[in-house]
Amino acid sequence: MNTFGNLFRITTFGESHGAAIGVIIDGCPAGLEIDEDFIQLELNRRKPGQSKITTQRKEADQFKILSGTINGKATGTPIAIVIENEDQRSKDYSHVEHVFRPSHADYTYQAKYGLRDHRGGGRSSARETAARVAAGAIAKLFLMQLDITVQAYVSQVGNIVAPDYQHLDLSKTEDNIVRCPDAATAEKMIALIDDIRLQRDTIGGVVTGVIKNPVVGLGEPVFDKLHATLGYAMLGVNAVKGFEYGSGFAGVTLKGSEHNDAFYADGEKIKTKTNHSGGVQGGISNGEDIYFNVAFKPVATIMQDQETVNDQGEAAIVSGKGRHDPCVVPRAVPIVEAMAALVMADMVLLARTNKI
Amino acid sequence: MNTFGNLFRITTFGESHGAAIGVIIDGCPAGLEIDEDFIQLELNRRKPGQSKITTQRKEADQFKILSGTINGKATGTPIAIVIENEDQRSKDYSHVEHVFRPSHADYTYQAKYGLRDHRGGGRSSARETAARVAAGAIAKLFLMQLDITVQAYVSQVGNIVAPDYQHLDLSKTEDNIVRCPDAATAEKMIALIDDIRLQRDTIGGVVTGVIKNPVVGLGEPVFDKLHATLGYAMLGVNAVKGFEYGSGFAGVTLKGSEHNDAFYADGEKIKTKTNHSGGVQGGISNGEDIYFNVAFKPVATIMQDQETVNDQGEAAIVSGKGRHDPCVVPRAVPIVEAMAALVMADMVLLARTNKI
Amino acid sequence: MNTFGNLFRITTFGESHGAAIGVIIDGCPAGLEIDEDFIQLELNRRKPGQSKITTQRKEADQFKILSGTINGKATGTPIAIVIENEDQRSKDYSHVEHVFRPSHADYTYQAKYGLRDHRGGGRSSARETAARVAAGAIAKLFLMQLDITVQAYVSQVGNIVAPDYQHLDLSKTEDNIVRCPDAATAEKMIALIDDIRLQRDTIGGVVTGVIKNPVVGLGEPVFDKLHATLGYAMLGVNAVKGFEYGSGFAGVTLKGSEHNDAFYADGEKIKTKTNHSGGVQGGISNGEDIYFNVAFKPVATIMQDQETVNDQGEAAIVSGKGRHDPCVVPRAVPIVEAMAALVMADMVLLARTNKI
Amino acid sequence: MNTFGNLFRITTFGESHGAAIGVIIDGCPAGLEIDEDFIQLELNRRKPGQSKITTQRKEADQFKILSGTINGKATGTPIAIVIENEDQRSKDYSHVEHVFRPSHADYTYQAKYGLRDHRGGGRSSARETAARVAAGAIAKLFLMQLDITVQAYVSQVGNIVAPDYQHLDLSKTEDNIVRCPDAATAEKMIALIDDIRLQRDTIGGVVTGVIKNPVVGLGEPVFDKLHATLGYAMLGVNAVKGFEYGSGFAGVTLKGSEHNDAFYADGEKIKTKTNHSGGVQGGISNGEDIYFNVAFKPVATIMQDQETVNDQGEAAIVSGKGRHDPCVVPRAVPIVEAMAALVMADMVLLARTNKI
Repeated sequence: MNTFGNLFRITTFGESHGAAIGVIIDGCPAGLEIDEDFIQLELNRRKPGQSKITTQRKEADQFKILSGTINGKATGTPIAIVIENEDQRSKDYSHVEHVFRPSHADYTYQAKYGLRDHRGGGRSSARETAARVAAGAIAKLFLMQLDITVQAYVSQVGNIVAPDYQHLDLSKTEDNIVRCPDAATAEKMIALIDDIRLQRDTIGGVVTGVIKNPVVGLGEPVFDKLHATLGYAMLGVNAVKGFEYGSGFAGVTLKGSEHNDAFYADGEKIKTKTNHSGGVQGGISNGEDIYFNVAFKPVATIMQDQETVNDQGEAAIVSGKGRHDPCVVPRAVPIVEAMAALVMADMVLLARTNKI
Repeated sequence: MNTFGNLFRITTFGESHGAAIGVIIDGCPAGLEIDEDFIQLELNRRKPGQSKITTQRKEADQFKILSGTINGKATGTPIAIVIENEDQRSKDYSHVEHVFRPSHADYTYQAKYGLRDHRGGGRSSARETAARVAAGAIAKLFLMQLDITVQAYVSQVGNIVAPDYQHLDLSKTEDNIVRCPDAATAEKMIALIDDIRLQRDTIGGVVTGVIKNPVVGLGEPVFDKLHATLGYAMLGVNAVKGFEYGSGFAGVTLKGSEHNDAFYADGEKIKTKTNHSGGVQGGISNGEDIYFNVAFKPVATIMQDQETVNDQGEAAIVSGKGRHDPCVVPRAVPIVEAMAALVMADMVLLARTNKI
Repeated sequence: MNTFGNLFRITTFGESHGAAIGVIIDGCPAGLEIDEDFIQLELNRRKPGQSKITTQRKEADQFKILSGTINGKATGTPIAIVIENEDQRSKDYSHVEHVFRPSHADYTYQAKYGLRDHRGGGRSSARETAARVAAGAIAKLFLMQLDITVQAYVSQVGNIVAPDYQHLDLSKTEDNIVRCPDAATAEKMIALIDDIRLQRDTIGGVVTGVIKNPVVGLGEPVFDKLHATLGYAMLGVNAVKGFEYGSGFAGVTLKGSEHNDAFYADGEKIKTKTNHSGGVQGGISNGEDIYFNVAFKPVATIMQDQETVNDQGEAAIVSGKGRHDPCVVPRAVPIVEAMAALVMADMVLLARTNKI
Repeated sequence: MNTFGNLFRITTFGESHGAAIGVIIDGCPAGLEIDEDFIQLELNRRKPGQSKITTQRKEADQFKILSGTINGKATGTPIAIVIENEDQRSKDYSHVEHVFRPSHADYTYQAKYGLRDHRGGGRSSARETAARVAAGAIAKLFLMQLDITVQAYVSQVGNIVAPDYQHLDLSKTEDNIVRCPDAATAEKMIALIDDIRLQRDTIGGVVTGVIKNPVVGLGEPVFDKLHATLGYAMLGVNAVKGFEYGSGFAGVTLKGSEHNDAFYADGEKIKTKTNHSGGVQGGISNGEDIYFNVAFKPVATIMQDQETVNDQGEAAIVSGKGRHDPCVVPRAVPIVEAMAALVMADMVLLARTNKI
């Protein structure tokens, strides 16, 4: 169950404070150049300790490829990537060994498995997503061959909302520490997060993903619709509470006559005048931009005392310790991109088999 | 790719205007009593022609079980269910054989497969969901053994929004034709849909799902989190544009100190004081109610002329013909329940294998 | 678990004496011409009542396609095929409702599921293989596009063994009722089966499969080696006890210097001088003929009284009733071909995704 | 495609001369004690350099667990195991970089992927099976909880055949370097292998597997019959050419009246007087011993010059270099056991979901 994808497929492993985390990428097409610098850059975008508004935990997040390449190219066999855990400070977690932190996975893991790795949340830690980012980087390298780009940015923090993606220059996403391409909005977001951090509290946000130049015909009806698979991918990321694409939840208030995207011919290409469909119709890409929103709740770890129970069912207090993000969305941007890239790479391969 | 689920698994087939649609349910535990009346009741809730606010197309939607039962009980072998297509009027669709209807799947199917069944949308028709409802009914029968209930209702049509589910009596959902358990809201919704219908237009809405008394420990980290699988299931339903659970998109504006659900002991049970988590923590059920919203766009078929292109890439007009729903959500209620029940049944079986 | 294949994938359903059996073929590439006459011919090769050496049970085995085609072509959506059960005589089986027939699946189904469909063996009946043959016919139609041929024949009945396939004209397989292309051997086999039948007994045999002109590069290391998948497919057929390919069990007595297949260049092509490898090296096809043997045990139903126990664990006698094959291999030939074709079609599609 | 199993599931990675090989075990039930000494013992049984009749390549084959355990117990999350490659001598393989070794996978990998890791056979090397043995050891630990034992031994080398397993004391398998529990036969086998080695040649053999005390009811009809899954598992092991269980190929010459296994009651238990079924009826275990034979071809690498072609399609000579096994079966014994244990562990978990 720790496997994602059909043909371009990943299996991740690892806990927050174990020896290492990692991923096996199975089904990467042979001949793909594996640019290790690019993988490291992607990991750096996700790693902790990047700025004042992220956790101060330090991890180099340096990866090592154990298999599946020769002379810098994928051989078609599984690519195993390992990232060692360094700055673990497992003792920081001794106070929660027998206590269930509110809105964390402590209780549910204990109930499901009968035991748990309490150190840093174990498997439920967002640290696992580093493995996804490494794998997603390889998926991106594959998509680049087809000129498909997968981008994400922070579109909302608390009540501060960025303009629609059509009005943004996504190349500016990395220009600031909150990863919002609109400088004015970014400034407000950073100020809010900093304020929240000083309150020893946390805040939620939204990451928007945009896939440009998708191949027409991606997505597998009926259950594996392109957007359903994207949604499944995003909802599997830690702290995600919602997914919408195209017109999304706001679209429910529109009439069909307002919502429908009229087709027109643009030379050889068939295009749509509007894009409420979010680039997907009947679960299959139509060539327009695919865009979607991913809602992240406020981080559960706060630097405050909270009421809870322990594993004996007795009332207890858990205090906020350790190093945590006041807002998860800046570091979630590369994760959203990675998951979207993995979905798209898989769908590209699946689509090779649709016709005789 | 027309298969859904891991252990409790369905494979559907069929087009809107072919000979029949149907489903194979594989992995239904042996010994389950298959109450055929119940299955028919569920199908009746979804079938067309129920009321003035749904399509007037007539389908009996009578099903036949071809295999997998003996003396009314599941044998553990595949249960095949077939529903014949009756009121097909395929000629109604001759005008769209070479034209791509806006915001339908005509163009994308053509592009993906190189040919398509244009009659009634073929495989992309919501008719396929009848097969899911039949299968979902069997999943419900299984869940009933564990006292798990899966309910859904219409919580929004256009801008008309029902109160939160905690304030509703869900047993009243079937009391009106729009399937909103709040009578006053239902009245407004029906009036709105009727008005929209007279405008020869359509409108979107939201269906809310509520799962009560879930077993603690359901859901498979990391990719197959319970809510991720529910979201994947819902996003695979026709016309769905978004999914959120628990606090959802609104939760992003909350602080962690507001959002966290404090644990307390209720006798032997561990419960939470609030339920922003929507019954799922770290992807695993914690025993509280699981609740979620599913956004449906306005139906793409409107009784108006619309600009489009034909399969030669030439400008064309498509006129609204046939019999269609002005709003899909009343009939989507049993579909949402069916998909949720399928997910839960699968997760119940998977959870049997978590521990030694 | 009633699903076979990755991309070209089938799910079968149905019991011997239920309403119908059938199959959903998912992943058949769009645009493939579905020749219904060919499918029926394949079914006719498998159906009971063909000759004096097969069971006298009569089944027309007429199939109906319920979905997935338009104008005689596959649309890329699931193709559902149903075959109704006609000549059921379920009462013939009332004597075994509470008794476990030796070397049948009665006891194991009862133990596994807690109940069973005792009529004609229920799901464990070889009747299920008709669904495979129908699906396999479609796989063959796909392979024909690539000039890949899949053939099988009876190479052994009891102790009577046909010459090696290299010395046979496989186009003569259908020239006699035992389906051995060597006329002299066929005559002996028929006489033996007839003799066994008069003894009210049964006898085993071997079916040999030969795949000519396979594409080079089919098969997925490490677990899904081409021959491993073929073996898995064959061992899933009723009454099969063994599978070997290339040199097989006899090859274990050879030295490496005798067994190795030397490569040579035949114009542009790379070929091997011998073919102990059976056309597969490292689990991947090398372009040479793929050939394999499938061992079938003697049919368990004999027209004699046998000692056994009933479902109360008491000693009992089961007498031979009903209509059964004295030897299964003549009718197994199209089943072996069907399963091999399904494997090859799947591997052809998978191989489309190996390289960038 | 480098994944094996449904619920108890492994994914392997690694090439003969890359940085490391390894495996992720997903679905190991939480709470299982992971005895690391036992895993190492199993790896030692497979590792090279054990005796004069195996390859002299030296590998410590020391493993490291990176995830999935705490305090020596499985947590239910993926268990990643890594084994570093040490004694690589990649230069030994420079002579085959552009040449296709006869009956190796060099040509087929090149044809399939367009490039290959030529060092030691890359992914096609039997080195990959060390990962399976490590995973299989964990499967064995799980099966031990149920008192199911999985044993294998060498039953044939060249023409030297051991007595049937019923006449052997399988606890003596490790008493000699060829792993045949019959001392007299073992002596002959060792002499033969030693002679073959001096001839700079290789020889094939058979490994027999025996599973005692299986739970009744394991195996999933129709495609995933217990023996079909065992066969699939074995045929995926390097150099395997055939699989048979129970009466196997020899059984085809028997009559039904000879072959059928009569049931009788042994107290509460239902047993069979004979066991031609090999413990499996209708694809489901009946509680009797499961036994099967696995045929291994002679190792392709011989210490002789052989004719072949290079990657330009030109005639070439490949000379025997490096360190290789003259006969693979002694080291294949733990591999056969590992794969059988993985199948059984998976089937045990699947069987938990058969009934309500």
